[in-house]
Amino acid sequence: MAKVNGHLAQMHESYLFSEVAKRAAAFSAECPERRLLRLGVGDVTRPVAPCCVEAMKRAADEMGGAATFRGYPPGTGEPFLKRAILLAEYAPLGVLLDESEIFVSDGAKTDAGALQELFAQDAAAAVCDPVYPVYLDANRMAGRRVVRMNCRAERGFCPEPPEERVDFLYLCSPNNPTGAALTRAQLARLVAWARENDAAILYDAAYRDYVVDGDCPRSVFEIDGAKEVAVELCSFSKGAGFTGLRCAWTAIPRENRWRLGELWARRQAAKFNGVSYPVQRAAEAALSAEGLRHMEESVRFYLENAAILRRALESAGIACFGGANAPYLWARCPEGMRSWDWFDALLRGAGVVCTPGAGFGACGEGYVRFSAFVSRGDTEEAAGKIARSAH
Amino acid sequence: MAKVNGHLAQMHESYLFSEVAKRAAAFSAECPERRLLRLGVGDVTRPVAPCCVEAMKRAADEMGGAATFRGYPPGTGEPFLKRAILLAEYAPLGVLLDESEIFVSDGAKTDAGALQELFAQDAAAAVCDPVYPVYLDANRMAGRRVVRMNCRAERGFCPEPPEERVDFLYLCSPNNPTGAALTRAQLARLVAWARENDAAILYDAAYRDYVVDGDCPRSVFEIDGAKEVAVELCSFSKGAGFTGLRCAWTAIPRENRWRLGELWARRQAAKFNGVSYPVQRAAEAALSAEGLRHMEESVRFYLENAAILRRALESAGIACFGGANAPYLWARCPEGMRSWDWFDALLRGAGVVCTPGAGFGACGEGYVRFSAFVSRGDTEEAAGKIARSAH
Repeated sequence: MAKVNGHLAQMHESYLFSEVAKRAAAFSAECPERRLLRLGVGDVTRPVAPCCVEAMKRAADEMGGAATFRGYPPGTGEPFLKRAILLAEYAPLGVLLDESEIFVSDGAKTDAGALQELFAQDAAAAVCDPVYPVYLDANRMAGRRVVRMNCRAERGFCPEPPEERVDFLYLCSPNNPTGAALTRAQLARLVAWARENDAAILYDAAYRDYVVDGDCPRSVFEIDGAKEVAVELCSFSKGAGFTGLRCAWTAIPRENRWRLGELWARRQAAKFNGVSYPVQRAAEAALSAEGLRHMEESVRFYLENAAILRRALESAGIACFGGANAPYLWARCPEGMRSWDWFDALLRGAGVVCTPGAGFGACGEGYVRFSAFVSRGDTEEAAGKIARSAH
Repeated sequence: MAKVNGHLAQMHESYLFSEVAKRAAAFSAECPERRLLRLGVGDVTRPVAPCCVEAMKRAADEMGGAATFRGYPPGTGEPFLKRAILLAEYAPLGVLLDESEIFVSDGAKTDAGALQELFAQDAAAAVCDPVYPVYLDANRMAGRRVVRMNCRAERGFCPEPPEERVDFLYLCSPNNPTGAALTRAQLARLVAWARENDAAILYDAAYRDYVVDGDCPRSVFEIDGAKEVAVELCSFSKGAGFTGLRCAWTAIPRENRWRLGELWARRQAAKFNGVSYPVQRAAEAALSAEGLRHMEESVRFYLENAAILRRALESAGIACFGGANAPYLWARCPEGMRSWDWFDALLRGAGVVCTPGAGFGACGEGYVRFSAFVSRGDTEEAAGKIARSAH
């Protein structure tokens, strides 16, 4: 028999969000008259900016013209998009990078899954617990040792660096699933630890657009010395609403100690062919003045949803975290309930879909995640129903 | 120090096509007045069909409307696109598959790079020599043992199955770079070998649209028993001209002996987030009656280019292969020249960019690849200049 990847074959049958979708679908089949309030998967619901639509349509027209047609996009991204990223996303933070340090891709999840390939098979990784599954799953599939960094409410869900030796660690801020954003001091401490311990940081900043607290950095590169050890993953998904369009970038500064930028360039050249040209034009438009205004409106809207949910839940005596600098609310299950039990109770009792915290790791047990990426009406309806169901 | 992936770090500094581009750019910088005829990288030049442009624009409009906005696409592809693939690409060949056996992605290169993850670290792979680099590079990066299957002119560049045990092998037909298409008998023999030797076949059919010879299958699943052992990679790049739009699919039948479809589904769910919705709408349109007519015209046009090149080169005494069922011509270097030497001579003497055969493997030494993906004018000019330079 051909030898298949045993690590992959032994992984849980279903990916967390597939399981959530399956249970929701089963309930809908049972009770087709019940409308579900979907606060489970973290998918945006507001349309993309008109300027993005127009940019994409213009680019589509170009692809249909003999004189304007474009073939393979540059493997690491179109220069026009890289420039827009440098100017709109880094310059305002006082972070100087150049085009060669930006790698455009089809998704931060794709990059989060692939970046582990830059490390040795016997390197050790550290992930937070609770954790967004891709970091863990990608390393498990590769048969790599993964250490957990526990994140507890009493420390504001800031991870404690691992005691044992690791080669790289994943951080995510603002955090999915806890909604906690690292403060400047917390992040500086983690960067210092990585520098001292010669470990790389893979910093997932997919939710950076939600940071409103001036004490929380939007980019890891705002921290002195981070350029030497950190790689940053960013996305157009959650701010500009590109989950259905697919565009993201990873930034790897030239100062990186292990020359991860060169390794990533080689990996991408060999295994990737770039991002759809019209999508890159839409992403460029998302960083225009009009696009950024639209993004701010969306972010404000979702953060208001989170605030509405949080107020309702706290009034009902449910302990809540996050939601201030993130579109996620991390809520403690009532009366010592377990995550999947509260998930089922909310689904069947309130018609609300959430994501069970236990699906993100052992430290997530006893919590669920609510996404604020829904309409105002659904937010208010869900807030009321969840609060009532807690009594 | 963090342990980086030594296999990756030791790989050649530059990817083949990057090196080709670099030398061409260096020459252009030296002689800016010389216009280069670019028959190097296999990138299409004809625009996509008007129906694809319109489909993409309609989809872009949907993304801008509150009622029609779509978030994350289904991870394995939109059902509408899967149905179009089944009906337009498989049904006419008498191949029955269903939606669950089709996995839409952003590129056949992405899939070719990732499918090796389904096999064990100590599994062995076999690749043709010469070979399109991604199969080899992806396995090298993973530190996996790779066996070469020599492909020689005297056997029509059909690979000889390896003598030693391998767990999976890559086939590509019509072939990149040799332009050879496997006949039904040749492919049946390879499938039979894989079945007997319990080895999986990763079958790259990215150039299937170029098959005009009725004796050459377009899909590996036209061969009896292939569903049990083969995985097929297909693309919208070369037929529909989607190199800049990015869409492809991989088909893994349920009958697969090692349940590779289930493993791939799990891998994709964990590490990928689907293909841009407007791109999938464009791909659907590419498989409409109008889209297919446009594709046939493009294919005919490029094949005529290949025929023009081939006639000119053969008249000049250059031995040529391929070009009949493929957009590539595989030409033997004159008088025992080496690949990179003829590459440099053609670049500097004729202003023609090709791809040196040696870049595809040891058996490619003494050959170069010409791409027919250029305008008629460039084809004719290049044909004349290459032929003259051979004298």
